[in-house]
Amino acid sequence: MSGEKHQRYRALNRVCRQEDRQCAFFSLPDPQYREPVPRHATESRMKNHTEIKVRGYHLDLYGHVNNARYLEFIEEARWALFEEHLGNLAAKGYSFFVVNININYKSPATLGDTIEIDSRITRFGGKSCTLKQTMTKKGAGTPVVEADVTFVIAGPEGKALPVEGDIRDMLEPFAA
Amino acid sequence: MSGEKHQRYRALNRVCRQEDRQCAFFSLPDPQYREPVPRHATESRMKNHTEIKVRGYHLDLYGHVNNARYLEFIEEARWALFEEHLGNLAAKGYSFFVVNININYKSPATLGDTIEIDSRITRFGGKSCTLKQTMTKKGAGTPVVEADVTFVIAGPEGKALPVEGDIRDMLEPFAA
Amino acid sequence: MSGEKHQRYRALNRVCRQEDRQCAFFSLPDPQYREPVPRHATESRMKNHTEIKVRGYHLDLYGHVNNARYLEFIEEARWALFEEHLGNLAAKGYSFFVVNININYKSPATLGDTIEIDSRITRFGGKSCTLKQTMTKKGAGTPVVEADVTFVIAGPEGKALPVEGDIRDMLEPFAA
Amino acid sequence: MSGEKHQRYRALNRVCRQEDRQCAFFSLPDPQYREPVPRHATESRMKNHTEIKVRGYHLDLYGHVNNARYLEFIEEARWALFEEHLGNLAAKGYSFFVVNININYKSPATLGDTIEIDSRITRFGGKSCTLKQTMTKKGAGTPVVEADVTFVIAGPEGKALPVEGDIRDMLEPFAA
Repeated sequence: MSGEKHQRYRALNRVCRQEDRQCAFFSLPDPQYREPVPRHATESRMKNHTEIKVRGYHLDLYGHVNNARYLEFIEEARWALFEEHLGNLAAKGYSFFVVNININYKSPATLGDTIEIDSRITRFGGKSCTLKQTMTKKGAGTPVVEADVTFVIAGPEGKALPVEGDIRDMLEPFAA
Repeated sequence: MSGEKHQRYRALNRVCRQEDRQCAFFSLPDPQYREPVPRHATESRMKNHTEIKVRGYHLDLYGHVNNARYLEFIEEARWALFEEHLGNLAAKGYSFFVVNININYKSPATLGDTIEIDSRITRFGGKSCTLKQTMTKKGAGTPVVEADVTFVIAGPEGKALPVEGDIRDMLEPFAA
Repeated sequence: MSGEKHQRYRALNRVCRQEDRQCAFFSLPDPQYREPVPRHATESRMKNHTEIKVRGYHLDLYGHVNNARYLEFIEEARWALFEEHLGNLAAKGYSFFVVNININYKSPATLGDTIEIDSRITRFGGKSCTLKQTMTKKGAGTPVVEADVTFVIAGPEGKALPVEGDIRDMLEPFAA
Repeated sequence: MSGEKHQRYRALNRVCRQEDRQCAFFSLPDPQYREPVPRHATESRMKNHTEIKVRGYHLDLYGHVNNARYLEFIEEARWALFEEHLGNLAAKGYSFFVVNININYKSPATLGDTIEIDSRITRFGGKSCTLKQTMTKKGAGTPVVEADVTFVIAGPEGKALPVEGDIRDMLEPFAA
């Protein structure tokens, strides 16, 4: 890579690597680029990976994470997903409204487990999209919970916006 | 039923209905009474009705009840449902495990709303059942949330029990 | 008061007390009644009594109500206290801000317990007041938690208002 | 350092550095040790630093973190504190019971803030100790909450153990 392009990529990578989860979305501007490329050149999709350690206050009478608490976990993962890549949604005038959650409880998570949450958009509809959020136990990879979260992006007036143009561009990186 | 017996059942039903949630399980006081009668002469199904007032700590940044919090509301309604009519499930060695929740968020509930929750079993499967829990705003009846909660009853060893015999009898009164 | 009027007030009080929280603000039905009387002939202070049943989702790994959850319980009791007697605080432009909570955990509440919460103002300061909220187990009266909640009432600008005039009148009924 | 001691320190350091927060507590066994020492040689006290990002579901009607939610934050910090340095308390037969929390709400945390929590024991009593947990906003260092958490360590029988011997050693590293 020429010195100038290399500089540019270094700058982009620096932003990209600042924190593992903070990954600036950039497209490869130069189709002639043939040299070994920064980590994310081949990954045009961003993935979100959130880890949560199960604590005593997450549990209920059965010694398992309570089924309502899992919804806070996947909400935490959604905030991390959108925050890292989209800035503050609210500040831009958008609201993220959940219209349906279909959640399967596969096996219980208990004290001492670290839960990994992966979130990807599996469906782009006319006005709504579906985000599949999968929780597994770190290490063993045991499935804990799988949730399909159907949401809309609403504008300042509170109405669901069509998933096209800017909205589509905003969500595209999170596609499966 | 004869007029006299009918009166006696009315009296028992009155005790039974004093508060919606307080429903005495009464045994037939009259050993001479030989006709098989439903537990509630006029109501062959028990219904559960739980009311919850929306408070400030239920809300999130949008000023609406948070979507995880609704799951605590429907769990509250399930506890009331089973407690009132079935005694302490845990004490009898049964566990109530939720395997899937499909929840539709129809319109937001906010500070000042009183939510009414109605819960009825809409499906009896081989080992699992589905409980439909419907939340509306008291007064207007505006739909807030509708959830289908699929659950199993597990025995002391933690295994899902077939929905038959005692288990079926236990759940039958909650059918839609 | 004459014996007859006393009887009438007793009757009105009975309606008034049917449910602790439901307290009908009644106007004097008898236009001939000319003596100024307190709203509750025998009770010049209003007390708040909130009951909460302990459910599975309230517990943590020790099988006891989690210590953060108790703070939601006492907040529930505060909302009931102010709502019943003061209308919608927010609608009147006031905010209730907690500045300190000193909470003693005396004995744990567990599944099946019904907690009774009593709330009374024990201190009126220049700008802050202290509300003592006491939780006991219904029936046995076993102390569960005792909390001193110091709060201010803030006006629309967010500044704590002096506890005098309207503010003092608003809070006076809740004095111990 | 001799090869053998160096090996020992390398091993200790490996444990020490595995994750930033996981820092094995070891004392310097060899006063003659003059070579550059592992990072923690000069820090005989372990500090715990937990960071929590404020999300939408943490807030209440005022758009601030709800006062009950702060108690979950400081509990999260306690779990991290004890877990990192003491292994799984429950597995060792100990329970950590909070007997009092005195919490001052200094300034509200809102969406977008990252809260830093510092936790140190400020008092060793006969059977109880006090842990001061201080929350500030990352960056500005604005005080958010300051809490004094008085706790006991209970043995398998549930009784508070005297703060001496093993118990004292276990807690000493967390002293202010």
